[in-house]
Amino acid sequence: MNEFELIAQLTRTLPFNASVIAGAGDDCAVLKAIEPGRLLLLKTDAIVEGIHFTKECQPEQIGHKALGRCLSDIAAMAGSPLAALITLALPQDFDPEFIQRIYAGMSQLAQQHAVAIVGGETTTNPERMLISVCLLGDVAADKCILRSGAKSGDAIFVTGELGGSLAGKHLEFEPRLAEAQWLAGHFAIHSMIDISDGLAGDLRHLLQAGVVGAELMASAIPISKTARTQGRAKGKPPLLGALSDGEDFELLFTVAGRDAVPLLDGWKKQFPTLRLSCIGRITSTPGLKLRDKTGIRTLEAHGYVHFA
Amino acid sequence: MNEFELIAQLTRTLPFNASVIAGAGDDCAVLKAIEPGRLLLLKTDAIVEGIHFTKECQPEQIGHKALGRCLSDIAAMAGSPLAALITLALPQDFDPEFIQRIYAGMSQLAQQHAVAIVGGETTTNPERMLISVCLLGDVAADKCILRSGAKSGDAIFVTGELGGSLAGKHLEFEPRLAEAQWLAGHFAIHSMIDISDGLAGDLRHLLQAGVVGAELMASAIPISKTARTQGRAKGKPPLLGALSDGEDFELLFTVAGRDAVPLLDGWKKQFPTLRLSCIGRITSTPGLKLRDKTGIRTLEAHGYVHFA
Repeated sequence: MNEFELIAQLTRTLPFNASVIAGAGDDCAVLKAIEPGRLLLLKTDAIVEGIHFTKECQPEQIGHKALGRCLSDIAAMAGSPLAALITLALPQDFDPEFIQRIYAGMSQLAQQHAVAIVGGETTTNPERMLISVCLLGDVAADKCILRSGAKSGDAIFVTGELGGSLAGKHLEFEPRLAEAQWLAGHFAIHSMIDISDGLAGDLRHLLQAGVVGAELMASAIPISKTARTQGRAKGKPPLLGALSDGEDFELLFTVAGRDAVPLLDGWKKQFPTLRLSCIGRITSTPGLKLRDKTGIRTLEAHGYVHFA
Repeated sequence: MNEFELIAQLTRTLPFNASVIAGAGDDCAVLKAIEPGRLLLLKTDAIVEGIHFTKECQPEQIGHKALGRCLSDIAAMAGSPLAALITLALPQDFDPEFIQRIYAGMSQLAQQHAVAIVGGETTTNPERMLISVCLLGDVAADKCILRSGAKSGDAIFVTGELGGSLAGKHLEFEPRLAEAQWLAGHFAIHSMIDISDGLAGDLRHLLQAGVVGAELMASAIPISKTARTQGRAKGKPPLLGALSDGEDFELLFTVAGRDAVPLLDGWKKQFPTLRLSCIGRITSTPGLKLRDKTGIRTLEAHGYVHFA
């Protein structure tokens, strides 16, 4: 199968939605203008064989991950995804069935979130597969949540459980789109980010953007079962995994302290099966601190330092 | 220099425009909604070291090419570019200065066309550089030109001169944005595409999309000086170069036969230094034919066949 035959096959059954005027097959994709009062969101993200996935992964999961990462970024701004373009850079000896299954995984996740796949391209990368996704979304102008709004006294929340994602979750995580839209629709969320580099690293992004600090409560950080198992097996403290392992793709956000309890109550009714944890508070003093039963200490870059 | 330092340096001086609400540094770029009555255009294109450029190319030209290819696609729909995201996939031993100069070339072309660079990402591709550009643009809903509108009797036009682009033009071509917008603003352009695969190959895309055929006049095809020089040096017929060499990034379009003369007249006044050639006509019979002094013959795939 040559490149043109592959493209013909891949583009035959792409998911679409009402925003699409012309999808794959012209010089550009053409989309309807968004409604007045909304803003456009634009994001690209690439995954590379041997780094973000291997040939041993299920191809459907590779596709899921490629699109899911971009969806998670749209979620982090409380946006809605609209349309995606897919760039496949492939070695000459690509297996068409493997590529089709990558597309199937991507298409399934796209359909689940009403995202149209409106084209893309294939090109050559001789040594390894690289998949780049470009995603267009939108958000109500008064609901868009940036990284920069954290204020001293804010409560810090995180969805789900953290750590050990590379054991499997990184290939099958669910982008928190509905959750983020509900949050932005019901509370004044001050700042939000999705966790891709690890809790400590991504919290630092919020702190730097808001020029604030944070104090985390060690006992409140939701540690995944995987991180606990890995802790027993490898002697790595589970809390360290939760703080520094990447690719959790959970939401990390801050709200005024007075909103913390109503938010937790509302969340439990709305999303009874997804854990939400209040893990600390924003401080006016810069720096990231961790409080546990032995006292309070400064977390250095990525949380690695000071852990035995 | 590590990845974070590189990003900090690259993002310090990115071009921006009035559409940008938040550029590099958040989960997504945030852009104003476009005016009612306009459509969104979305395009991605990647260039790969060793395939589309080499390390011996001037880095500014590599950047120019990476963005220029996407701009050329926006031009092919008579659109205006708005904002770009840049994906850099780099080997570990990247040279920061080389990357900065790639960005400088990209930024210069972006500024020339009032395009904002609103972020992107760096990732790892161990064996070779790969640069992918995602470009968002817009177009008046009644001026968007698809590939599919060619009608029997249309005159076929091409801008500039064709062939031999790989000798240098592929690194420094000017995307025909102003020309395409002028064409769409003054004439009922039926179909348009930019020439990336070569005249014969891209004309076939128009013919397939419109379910029509074409007859080209060999003597009217504008052959570049480079294609002529290469013809003498390598014994490759210059006309074959003009028909089949790729990466010309000129506009190929069709209009009703009655518009051909007024269009040529108007063009000469508007763009006196850029050649515009009427090279043939659209026919109702499918297939691509070439007429020269020896008669008429069918051009097979890519125009290679039947040339001695």
